[in-house]
Parts: sequence; structure tokens; C-alpha cells
Amino acid sequence: MSKEVKPDSISLCPLSAAAALEQELLCIFGTGDLGRSLGQRLLQTGYRVVYGSRRPHSCGLLPQGAQVRSHAAAAEPASLVFICIHREHYDFLETLAPHFKGKVLVDVSNNLKKNLYPEANAEYLQRLIPGAHVVKGFNTLSAWALQNGPSDANRQVYLCGNSAEAKEAVAEVATKLGFTVLDKGSLSSARELEDFPLQLFPEWRLPLRLAFGLTVFFFFYLLIRTVVSAYVEQGKDISFRIMASLANKVFPIVSLIMLSLCYLPGVIAAFLQLYRGTKYKRFPDWLDRWMLCRKQLGLLALGFASLHVLYTLIIPIRHVTGANHLILLPSIRLNHTIPFDTTMAWRTDSYYAMGILGFGLYLLLGITSLPSVSNALSWREFSFIQSKLGYLTLFICTFHTYLYGWDKFLWVSGYTWYTPPGYMLSLVLPSAVMLLKLLLVLPCVDRSLTRIRQGWERSDPEDDSKNSLLT
Amino acid sequence: MSKEVKPDSISLCPLSAAAALEQELLCIFGTGDLGRSLGQRLLQTGYRVVYGSRRPHSCGLLPQGAQVRSHAAAAEPASLVFICIHREHYDFLETLAPHFKGKVLVDVSNNLKKNLYPEANAEYLQRLIPGAHVVKGFNTLSAWALQNGPSDANRQVYLCGNSAEAKEAVAEVATKLGFTVLDKGSLSSARELEDFPLQLFPEWRLPLRLAFGLTVFFFFYLLIRTVVSAYVEQGKDISFRIMASLANKVFPIVSLIMLSLCYLPGVIAAFLQLYRGTKYKRFPDWLDRWMLCRKQLGLLALGFASLHVLYTLIIPIRHVTGANHLILLPSIRLNHTIPFDTTMAWRTDSYYAMGILGFGLYLLLGITSLPSVSNALSWREFSFIQSKLGYLTLFICTFHTYLYGWDKFLWVSGYTWYTPPGYMLSLVLPSAVMLLKLLLVLPCVDRSLTRIRQGWERSDPEDDSKNSLLT
Amino acid sequence: MSKEVKPDSISLCPLSAAAALEQELLCIFGTGDLGRSLGQRLLQTGYRVVYGSRRPHSCGLLPQGAQVRSHAAAAEPASLVFICIHREHYDFLETLAPHFKGKVLVDVSNNLKKNLYPEANAEYLQRLIPGAHVVKGFNTLSAWALQNGPSDANRQVYLCGNSAEAKEAVAEVATKLGFTVLDKGSLSSARELEDFPLQLFPEWRLPLRLAFGLTVFFFFYLLIRTVVSAYVEQGKDISFRIMASLANKVFPIVSLIMLSLCYLPGVIAAFLQLYRGTKYKRFPDWLDRWMLCRKQLGLLALGFASLHVLYTLIIPIRHVTGANHLILLPSIRLNHTIPFDTTMAWRTDSYYAMGILGFGLYLLLGITSLPSVSNALSWREFSFIQSKLGYLTLFICTFHTYLYGWDKFLWVSGYTWYTPPGYMLSLVLPSAVMLLKLLLVLPCVDRSLTRIRQGWERSDPEDDSKNSLLT
Repeated sequence: MSKEVKPDSISLCPLSAAAALEQELLCIFGTGDLGRSLGQRLLQTGYRVVYGSRRPHSCGLLPQGAQVRSHAAAAEPASLVFICIHREHYDFLETLAPHFKGKVLVDVSNNLKKNLYPEANAEYLQRLIPGAHVVKGFNTLSAWALQNGPSDANRQVYLCGNSAEAKEAVAEVATKLGFTVLDKGSLSSARELEDFPLQLFPEWRLPLRLAFGLTVFFFFYLLIRTVVSAYVEQGKDISFRIMASLANKVFPIVSLIMLSLCYLPGVIAAFLQLYRGTKYKRFPDWLDRWMLCRKQLGLLALGFASLHVLYTLIIPIRHVTGANHLILLPSIRLNHTIPFDTTMAWRTDSYYAMGILGFGLYLLLGITSLPSVSNALSWREFSFIQSKLGYLTLFICTFHTYLYGWDKFLWVSGYTWYTPPGYMLSLVLPSAVMLLKLLLVLPCVDRSLTRIRQGWERSDPEDDSKNSLLT
Repeated sequence: MSKEVKPDSISLCPLSAAAALEQELLCIFGTGDLGRSLGQRLLQTGYRVVYGSRRPHSCGLLPQGAQVRSHAAAAEPASLVFICIHREHYDFLETLAPHFKGKVLVDVSNNLKKNLYPEANAEYLQRLIPGAHVVKGFNTLSAWALQNGPSDANRQVYLCGNSAEAKEAVAEVATKLGFTVLDKGSLSSARELEDFPLQLFPEWRLPLRLAFGLTVFFFFYLLIRTVVSAYVEQGKDISFRIMASLANKVFPIVSLIMLSLCYLPGVIAAFLQLYRGTKYKRFPDWLDRWMLCRKQLGLLALGFASLHVLYTLIIPIRHVTGANHLILLPSIRLNHTIPFDTTMAWRTDSYYAMGILGFGLYLLLGITSLPSVSNALSWREFSFIQSKLGYLTLFICTFHTYLYGWDKFLWVSGYTWYTPPGYMLSLVLPSAVMLLKLLLVLPCVDRSLTRIRQGWERSDPEDDSKNSLLT
Repeated sequence: MSKEVKPDSISLCPLSAAAALEQELLCIFGTGDLGRSLGQRLLQTGYRVVYGSRRPHSCGLLPQGAQVRSHAAAAEPASLVFICIHREHYDFLETLAPHFKGKVLVDVSNNLKKNLYPEANAEYLQRLIPGAHVVKGFNTLSAWALQNGPSDANRQVYLCGNSAEAKEAVAEVATKLGFTVLDKGSLSSARELEDFPLQLFPEWRLPLRLAFGLTVFFFFYLLIRTVVSAYVEQGKDISFRIMASLANKVFPIVSLIMLSLCYLPGVIAAFLQLYRGTKYKRFPDWLDRWMLCRKQLGLLALGFASLHVLYTLIIPIRHVTGANHLILLPSIRLNHTIPFDTTMAWRTDSYYAMGILGFGLYLLLGITSLPSVSNALSWREFSFIQSKLGYLTLFICTFHTYLYGWDKFLWVSGYTWYTPPGYMLSLVLPSAVMLLKLLLVLPCVDRSLTRIRQGWERSDPEDDSKNSLLT
């Protein structure tokens, strides 16, 4: 209710008529998917919409309530024009330059590839029509998001432009549509905004490459140790093992290594802070990048662990339903009545129990990193789960692998061609991470680290008392 | 606080007093769950709230800070009244009509069933009190959502009403409460808004019916082929197989068919666009409806696939722990020392490996369709996962089924009563979808399709250059 | 763009210059993580930011565009100062008191522990600088949330303070940053706000304790019944069973009991409403608390059920790959050619099928309680899943357990040391819950309950017709 409304019962009726007239008129050039969705959303929010079209009388399905005119006629009454046209067709806009004088043009366009043109679309548009105030914006939204209204990650609209006033006018429309506006500065940021929707999982690239590299390495390492060595030394063809047995060795190894790579950068950062005696120095770039992709590393590790679980659970089916492996079993089962060994029973059952508990915790970590779940957690709860439960998961999974090894560490026969089995290699990194973490939680080390993280600096002894700043 | 405020200590104190007086007073009729939650939320946001009640002195627990008066006394000072009463009790409001003159009445009511009354509650209210400005709204929110503030899907408040000014007043309150407002037009949309909270999974209905139909068909098809035929031809009662073996045949078949039904409409739409030479013609209704329920089809397919995985993993337990099946096994295991067949080993292990990978990708597709995850993806990332990874999943799952069949396609004995086994039937649709998709990605076809999807139209040759509009 | 702008080309240019000058200047004390993130976000939203620092020339990396000055010089031009300093260093602020006269101070600080100080940080600050208007706020946000903008649960900013005007000024900033503001009253609520980020899963505490208690009880109960009794009576050491077999008995028992504890309070509440004849009386505190942690009870139950599934699926692997159990198997398998029993086959397969379906429904319940999924459901859909499907899950899981028992209920040999097996104990509560629920859905009882839930009250017979209020 606006401030003019004083005598309620009288003012409402005429005002409601006036309000209908007052609705701002916006113009949209382009009747493609994006133009239509944008128009529909604007109409729903209470704006009036006029489309500019080459062929005002045959331009397909437009949202109900919108008008269609020729480009010039459509731009005339509106002070804000959305340009929902492909860049290739911008040239015809130049002829309309006089109509655009002093108006705000919102460049909504995207390109199909990065670096397709020497300058950003919005900069090109500004060059074509110097008299208008070009604002780049809304281009990170899909037609779908525009039609259905903002949702979680589609809530933000990025704007950039040289005129603060023009940006404010666009920001007001975006806010009314329910979006949150983020000003990215002058029109020179337009390229950045135009590249944004072309990105494909930028934060997953490094972890995926790492996972791929590790998988390939361990695959060939184990291929040589098992299949090739069996063929060379005994002449047996056990190549079929590639599909299941070998995969079920590679996956848990990669999973454990990647899980420990999640926690290694945190440990390194802590030692770096201890060494430097301050938290106000920047970490080296590689460490920053590494720390930013910990979540992705962890999720990939969870994926490999899940495959390991499925492969493991499928083992007995292969034995029971396929006839091919069974020839090996009866001899074991019937002839040797192995004396029952309680220690081995403890070991086997502990091995499986640790595997199950480790996987359960792994899953818990995965679930809490779902956006909606992690958003519902307070910062302290999130860090409790990701750090305390994370290290517990790492410990249990490492222990699970040690139990797998058991006394085989000492068996000479396991070291085919003088190479250690894969699971031994996989134990190096997690053991190191846990050892370093153990050092960090020693009371004396922990105390120094806590002080540093609260802002204390070793290098500045004369002014300690006021040095602490909120973490 | 703006910079004009210079003599701070002076201006602030009177202003803060003024601000307290300035808080708008809203009235709520009805002290039920919804009325209370609404009042509590309004109070938290800074409004003053007065309840109108039949018995102002005994109306249970109301939010702290709210006043309670008789209906007439409560409505008097407020310009906006929320009607949180069941429609059956609206008649007493008629007596208050003079008090409501020119005020905004927000009808928050819902009905227990659709079409219970000839006119919408809000229209009925408007008829009772013609002098007031009735706005329908807030009824799609639960008391819980009102109390706890807006969250994802509960963020939107739908409004409709005949007075634009009244709607704006209500929209302002809703916006202050943190909701996003969507104007649904005049009061004649009230029925639509009132039916909204009564819907029960409307978008799941078609996929669920399809899943049910497919399940029933394949259940009886396989029942006849296995259980009935075994009873008729050999007199054996293997009806117990219904619970596990038969289910484990039906579920993967239905899952694969439904997965391919996810991708079939997209392929059909592409061919339709190619045939028509434009993307600006509407798809037939059945195709539109089909495309809108692809997500639900996929999630149901994932559900069936999960059941298939669990049933498969349970097989060896049934063999090992239950004594009933075991009589069959020893003979296989001991007497026949089957010569080891590497090809068959490859086939079996590949079969299982494909199943595991297919299920892993299936799960990935399911996870990315969680609202919070899909919202965090850019449009390009989402379409990469749902289309590229989706087709990969379909391919792997189909390949898994072909490996299951292997050379059984040619065995005459498999065709009991001249009917093909179930898995053969399940292969028809996915094979067709992949074949059609293969045609679409042929370079020449792909090029035409891309041009059409960028706005090019074959039917309009004289004006090609300007025809492309933003996709 | 507002309607007053008529001569566009003229007004825009000077206005855009004016707009740049108009941007409000905010001051931040403290250059720690929180101070930097807050500053960066403020700058992005269009504010100008000046940092107050002890050492304006050496205070590390600050967001681009921010100025740094001495504390006094920084506070001078701003009317709003964010205090991002640890409470221990507040004393130096007292010397700046004259500079703060009439200004708004936002206390953003948190403590490391609850009850560390006798008064809240914000109250202490107000006492130090009585001339300023202290507002507590923003402290529930992490530096991360400030930097990346609001997301689901991090969307709310809690404020409290004695000056309504000062709170409004802070609320305006928070709203511009995209947060939703919740006023928590006067400065005396500051302690509550400061305790908020220190909470660690408050709503999980009761369910976790319950789960722990039940697990410990059943663990020792079953330990005595199996391991101890075997050792005492037969002198056999089967302690290795603790890791897998025993765990796989404890987990499903606890899971089933906790699932029934999810539904018991709803049933009790219904009977209480029936007994009292009204829904407007408060439930006893214990019932309220119980009902509020149903979701957590259910999720823990799902966790235990998942462990049960994994443990069950691992059984055959232990048999096949570990040699320790196998000595028992051949005798069963080969010597006794047990006559095939169709009834037992039905029972075993139904037992497993019920387990799988129950777990599938369990998972469905878990998925729909993910915040993003449950938010996307209408209230009616949510209640359909959680109530109808919930009871179906409970029924199937209970039936699964009865099938496990089968005819063993009558076997005397099962009652070691006169104690019933664990699964029998686990059946008591779910059976009771389902029996009570069955009573509630009897048509006559259901009718009364529905009337009560719609607002009807038995105790107030003279005024029935107007007694119903919206649910």
C-alpha cells in the first residue's frame, strides 16, 4: 500500500484503476524461447510487455497479454528494452539507434563457444548504439529458470554496465522478478558474464583428471602384476579377470587414495600456518586450488567406494550362478576340513564390519554435502561432520585395508616381480595423513594452531594483545 | 541509515519511538493453526497483529504480542484482514459488512475436496461483502511454512483478486514475510488456487500408471511362461518363484523400458522438428505431456533398477542360508568338472560389470535430479548429464541385457509356448531409441537440427538471415 | 526506471553520476576472515566500505575497492559500524566512544564456548559505549555464507537491539545483501543469538541417545544369549560373531523399534485428542518433544536398516571367500538331500521380498525428507508419503520380521536361559503401534477424530456451529 493512500475507503477504488494504468511497459526484441519466457514472467509479475518483431503478425506463440509491434514501434514507449537476439543479427539494431537514444538496453545474449568474437556481445552492442545505456544481464539464466521463477542456484542475476542508473533500473526489474542481483562492475566484465554459462564443471576438472590418472596407473600396474605375470610365468590366460576382479582391486585403491587427498591439503595448510606463525599470509596457489576441490575429490572417492561395494557384493553371484569358477571351489570345500581358527574368524569378520561401517560413514559424508543438506547445517555442524567424521571414515577405511593385508605384508610370494601388491601402495598416503593429523592434535601443537587461527601472529611480538581478529 | 542523519543522538530516539508507532496493524479472523502461525510470523516481521474472535477472552494460545478483540473491534483499525476461517462459517461475516467497507480481505481458506461448492470460497466471500476488496492468497502455504518462513518450493505466494491496489497491498505483506509473489489475475482464478493444495502428485500420475501397467503385463506374461507352463507340462509347482525369481525378471524389464521411454520423446521431437523444418510449431499435446514427465519416468525406472539390484544381490543368500534350493546345487558343483571357458568368463564378468556401471550411472542421474543438485548446475551442465550421461546409461543397460541373452537368442528351447523370453521384449524399445539417436547424431542430420534449434526456419527462405532468434 | 524520468537522454547521465556519489559508506572494524568476507559482499552489493585497523598500512589482503584507515578516521564518516573483533579486544573501543555517539554498532562476534562470560558480547559492548545503538546480528552466518551470498538455511539474519531505528538500518543492509531478517527483540536476546552458532545438532541429541541406549541394551542381551551361553554351556568360543552376526541382529532390531517410535507419538496424540475432545489443549511437553524429533528417529532407523542390508548381503561372501565357516556347509549340502518344501520356499522368498520392499520404501521415506525434496512437495503430498507410506513401511518391515520368526515362536529350544530371542522383543512395539493405528482408522473413531481436528470441541456444546476454525 503506497504512501498516498490516506482515506482508505475512498482512495482504493480509483487507485486500483490508476494502478492498472501505471504498470511499467517493457520491450523485448526477439520472440525466441528466452524472449517468450522472459515476457511471460514479466507479465506474471505485473509488467506490461511489448514484443518487437520483424513480422509482427506471424511470430508464433507469444505469452497471453503481450503486444507485438514492429521493432521501432515497440521500442518507442518503453524505456527499457531486452535484446534477446543472436549476436549475428545485431547489425539491424544500428538502424534503430535513434529510437534507442537514452534508453536502457539489456543484452541477454550468449554465444555458442568461448572467444568466438574479439569483443563481448554487450560491448559490441554498445559500440553499435553509443547513445543507449547497455547493461549485460540475465544471460546466466535459462529460459526454464525465467519461466518458472528463481530457485536455489538460479536465484542470482549478474549485471554489468557503465551507467549506474541503468543498472539500477535493470536491478529493480530483476528484484521484482524475485532474483537477487549481483553487480559485476562496468561493461568490461561482459565477457566474463558471457563465458559463465559455457562452463562445464570447472571445479570438477582437476579431481576428474586425478581420478582418471590414478585409475589408469593402478589398472596397468595390477594388469602386469596379475594377468601378464600369470601368462608369462604359467602360461595361463586369466584376462577375463579384467572386468571384475581387477576392477574391484583398482576401485578401492583409488577411492582410499582420493579420500586421503581430501584431508592432506588441510594438514599441509595447518603445518604451513604453524611454520609461518600467522594465518594472514596467502597459501600458495596450488594449495588454494587443491583445498577448493576437496568436496569434488571426496564425492569421486565415494563413487569409487560404491563401485567397490557393488563389485564385492556381486562376487558370490558370479560363483554361484556362473559355472565357470566353480571348479575351484569343491576341492577347497570338501577335502580340506580346515581346523577352525578363531583369530582368522575375528579378522575376517572385522574386515567386513570395518568395510561396512566405513562405507556407511562415507555415505553420510556424501549426503551431508548435498547442497540442501549442507545449507541446513550450521557452520559448526558442517565442520564437525566434514572434519571429525571425515577423519573417522579415513581411519576406518584404512584399518579395513590393513585388515585385508593382515599378515600378507610379510609373504614373499605376494611380491610378484618384486612389486608390492596394489593395496600396500594405497596405504602409504592415508597412513601419512593420519600420522600428520595425529601430530597436529597433540595438545601443545593444537594450542599454538588454535591461537594462530584466532589471529595471533608470531612475527609481531610488540603488539600481541590487539592482534587477534575474529575468525 | 543514510548520511543526511547528522545530529544522530537527537534524531534517532524520537524516530525509534515513531517507528514503533508506525508499524502497520493487521487483523486476523480465526485463531486456528493457520491463523496463529500467520500471526506469529507477522509479529516476527514487525507488524502489529490483532485477532478477531467470537470469544476474545478464551481462545487458547495466541502468539505473544498479539491483541484479541471481538470481530468488529478487531477489523476497525486495520485496513487488511486475513480471513482464516472455514468457508462454512463465512455467513456471520455478512453481518460485519459495514466494517469491511473499502478494506482488503485476504481469503486464506481451503476446502477438503475439489468441487465441494459451486463457486470458489473467495468469490463467495466477495459476494457476501461486495464493499470489500477480496484477495485470494496464502492458501497454498501450510501452517508450518508460515511459521518457519519460506523455503524452496514454499517460497511462492499466489494471489488473485479484482483490485490491483488491494493485491499490491497483500503482495507487500507477503514480500516482507520473505515470500515471492505471483499474480494469478482476477478473482475468477480463485478456484484454481483453491484446488492447488488438494493435488496429489499430478505429474506422477501418468508415469505411475505406465509403470503399473508394464509391471502387471510382464508379471502375467512371465507367470504363464514359467510357473504355469512348468505346472502344465511337467506338473511341478514352482509357484514360490513368484516372490523372488519372477520379481527379479519383471523389475529389470520394466526399468529398461521406462528408461528408454525417457529418451524416446526427445528423439521423436527432434525428428518432428526436422520434418517440419522449424522449431516454432507446437508439439502435439501427447508429446508435450510425455516430455514433461520424463523426470518422473526416469526416477521410477531408477526405483525398479534398485529393486533389481537388491533382488540380484540376495540370490546367493537364498542359496546359502535357505536349505530349500540347495539340493540342486551339489550335483552341478561336484560331478561335472566343466572345462574352463575363457569366453564365457569374459561374458559373465562383463555382464556383471556392465550391470554395476549402468546402475552407478543410473544413480548419478537420480542424484542430479534432486532439486538442490539440479539447481546448483548451470543449464549446460544439467543438459550434459541428463542427455550425454543418460544415453550412456541407456547404452550400458541395454548392452547388459544383450550380454544376459548372449547366445540364448537362437535357442529354440527358450521360446516356451512360442513366446519369446521377457528380456527380448524389453530390448525392442531401447534398441530402437538408440538407433534413432544414432541417426540424429550423423553429422549432416545434426547440422540441420542445430540450425533449426537456433531459430532457422526452412519454410521462410526469403528472410533467412534475420530469422535466428536466441535459443 | 521510475515514471518521473521523462526526458531520458538528459536525466540519465547526471543521475548516473549522482548515483555513484550516493552509495552509502559502511565501516568495518576488524580485518579477519569475517570482516573481509562481509566487506567483499557489501562492495559487491554497491556499498562503499572503509576498514578500521590498528595498522592501516599492513593489514593483509582486503577486498578490492575498500579503503583502510585508523579506527577513529574510519568510523567518522559512517553511520553504521560492523564490529568484527573478538570480545577480548573490545576494551580499546571504549576510547573511541566519542566517535560512536549516536551511531549504529553491529556486534557480529561469537564466542568459542557457551557461558564464557557473565553477559552477552553485545550487552558488554553497549555498556562500554552507552552513546551508541548496539545491534546484535549477522553472527549466525559463516564467512563462507557472507562471501557467497545467502543460500537456503543461511538465508536468515537474526537481529536484536534496543533501538528500533538502528535495527531497521541494519535490516535494510541485510535485505540488500539478500538475507531475510528476523527481529528477535531487545538486546537481552543477544545471548540467545550468540549461543546459536555453538549448537551441535540439538534436535538429534534425544534420538541419538535413544539409538545408543537401544543398541547397547540389545548388544549385551544378545551377547549373553549367544556368545556367553555357548561358552558356558558348550565351552565353545564363538566370540568372533560379535563383529558380524551379532551386529546384524542388533541393527535390524534397533531399526524396527525406532521406526515404530516414529509413529507411536502420532497415535498417542490422536488418542489424547479423542479423550480430551478438543485439539486446542496443549500436548504434554514430553509428547511435544517426541513429535519434534520424529524425522531424526526415522533417519537413524534408516541408517540402522542400511547397515542391516549391507551386513546381510555380505553373509555369502564370508562363506565363500573366508574358509572359516565352510566346514559347516558341506555336511548340510551333501549328506541331507532335504525333500523340497514349497511352503518353506514361499516363506523364505517372501521373507526376502518383504525385506527388499520394506527397505525400498524406507529409502523413499528418507529421500523425501531431504530438505530440497520435502520443500518441493505440497503439504498434502508430504503427509501422504510420511503417513500412508510410512505405515506401509512399518507394516512390511514388521511382517518381514514375523516371517523371520515363522514357527520359531513355539520352539522351546529358542528360549535360551528362558529369554526370548531378540527379534521377538523387537516385534512388541511395532505390533502395538499398528494395532492402535487400526483402532484409529475404524470409521466411527476416524469420524470423531476428523471433526476434532477440524476444530470441533466436545466440551463446548452450546456453540458448536461456529467453533470450527481452519486447520
